[in-house]
Amino acid sequence: MIVALAGGVGGAKLAQGLARARPPGDLTVVINTADDFDLYGLRICPDLDTVLYTLAGIADPTTGWGIAGDTHHAMDAIAGYGRDPWFRLGDRDLATHVLRTERLRDGSSLSTVTAEFAAALGVATALVPMSDERVATLVDTPAGRLEFQDYFVARRQQDVVTGVVFDGVEAARPAPAVAESLADATLIVFCPSNPIVSIGPILAVPGLRDLIAKCPAPKIAVSPIVGGRALKGPADRMLASLGFESSALGVAKMYAGLVDAIVIDDEDAALAPAIREGGMRVLVTQTVMGGPEDRERLAAEVIGFGLGRERGGGR
Amino acid sequence: MIVALAGGVGGAKLAQGLARARPPGDLTVVINTADDFDLYGLRICPDLDTVLYTLAGIADPTTGWGIAGDTHHAMDAIAGYGRDPWFRLGDRDLATHVLRTERLRDGSSLSTVTAEFAAALGVATALVPMSDERVATLVDTPAGRLEFQDYFVARRQQDVVTGVVFDGVEAARPAPAVAESLADATLIVFCPSNPIVSIGPILAVPGLRDLIAKCPAPKIAVSPIVGGRALKGPADRMLASLGFESSALGVAKMYAGLVDAIVIDDEDAALAPAIREGGMRVLVTQTVMGGPEDRERLAAEVIGFGLGRERGGGR
Repeated sequence: MIVALAGGVGGAKLAQGLARARPPGDLTVVINTADDFDLYGLRICPDLDTVLYTLAGIADPTTGWGIAGDTHHAMDAIAGYGRDPWFRLGDRDLATHVLRTERLRDGSSLSTVTAEFAAALGVATALVPMSDERVATLVDTPAGRLEFQDYFVARRQQDVVTGVVFDGVEAARPAPAVAESLADATLIVFCPSNPIVSIGPILAVPGLRDLIAKCPAPKIAVSPIVGGRALKGPADRMLASLGFESSALGVAKMYAGLVDAIVIDDEDAALAPAIREGGMRVLVTQTVMGGPEDRERLAAEVIGFGLGRERGGGR
Repeated sequence: MIVALAGGVGGAKLAQGLARARPPGDLTVVINTADDFDLYGLRICPDLDTVLYTLAGIADPTTGWGIAGDTHHAMDAIAGYGRDPWFRLGDRDLATHVLRTERLRDGSSLSTVTAEFAAALGVATALVPMSDERVATLVDTPAGRLEFQDYFVARRQQDVVTGVVFDGVEAARPAPAVAESLADATLIVFCPSNPIVSIGPILAVPGLRDLIAKCPAPKIAVSPIVGGRALKGPADRMLASLGFESSALGVAKMYAGLVDAIVIDDEDAALAPAIREGGMRVLVTQTVMGGPEDRERLAAEVIGFGLGRERGGGR
């Protein structure tokens, strides 16, 4: 059993590759839920949905999130009612939020609802929210403390992030399937997601970091920073403004003590020696993922290197 | 001020005619809410929405309900999650249900939300739910007691209705604007809606029938039965199975003592003498409404005859 930790688009791509590279049912993806929020009374879980849609093969290939070919007629009507359509939900996507909200209000856990959705969409991979309790990422900026989606979507990540808070995380517990999957884990993969606001909240759930640390399976991360820049999103600027190095080396330092190995891009090959000096094994390869086949290619390299079957290149 | 009582499609058409025939703001439509129900956790108010969309000029001209040109992508996705899409909500229509549910959950009254929606869609007519409390029509049939939309939509009105119950009506009060509008009413119009399950629930709200009865304004009904048949829906069969006459005369008898005048169709001219014998004034005219101009034509005749400006024809 491989257990992957993932945020949104980058994590979803590697998760899809891992799912393709392994027999059905041999992968659990633990997904960040600290981006979740309420909109128009609906519970929106952006990272869960991005992973769900990607593994179901229906994700929009252009954006990486949302459903391919989706329309936005409901949003147009919402705007027609005078409401700000700042977070554009597609019509097919809206079904997910409506049904999830109904099920949660009826008392079902987010874990249960997510598993139901995955089954309905034919996804054999176990998709697990990091926690069934609500956690909300807040970012401190010169403009004040912002809700994550306000910072991320409405304000287009323009604000300098001077601090990050995972509101409610003290009261959160790992979702039941987190411990169950880690008990069977043969490899733990930290997907190329933002280490601060995607992987960070997962590790901040009380007890979850310890579960990972105590798990005897090898642990491997894939750097989301390539050539000093995030492939998607504000991870590079966020790392810098919070005092970390915006580089694969910076990512390695953040995961030091928890992760045994890291996969960095060919472009960052020069950083490999410094990372290795820190005691981490390094695989240098092409980490920028294209379509599903390329995601499977990277996943196979990650698995092979993570399990120690391949030596890391120093190209 | 004209006050109209209305259910769904037929009521909405005449309400649109009345709105066109009078200066803006000179009409209040009191609308049946006993068809309302919850679906996928959303509050659906079919009659309110049909009147809203019709007066906003966006109703589907073919069905009379829903929004013209609407798509059904969210419903397709809901079906993809394994849920029965028996009640097909359009994508634009879904926005109404999502926003209404949000506002109601936040503690706003159905009256407030309906007024907000009407304002947002440019409807100057006051649209008023019969009550802000929940009332649910249940129909007794040989197959047992059914929820209204189960009978009406899912089972396509195939069951013989042996009884009707307005669940919760004892605890309902007329919405605040009902009494306010009746205090200013110069004419009360019973739209051509099902007298049992559309107008019936309105009159069953404790105190509401009395408010109408005590209002000094003349009261006029438009028969929804033409040639013994309902123009739309099961009113004819429902009248018959509940022991009423399925005719304009039967409708007149149901409203006897409450309504001063009735408008019946040319096709039913032969019934006029019998209705007049019962003490009700009768206007015989073309009651089957076409487009907005024709609705306005009928509304003008209804207003003129209701106010006593015109004599009823006996053609």
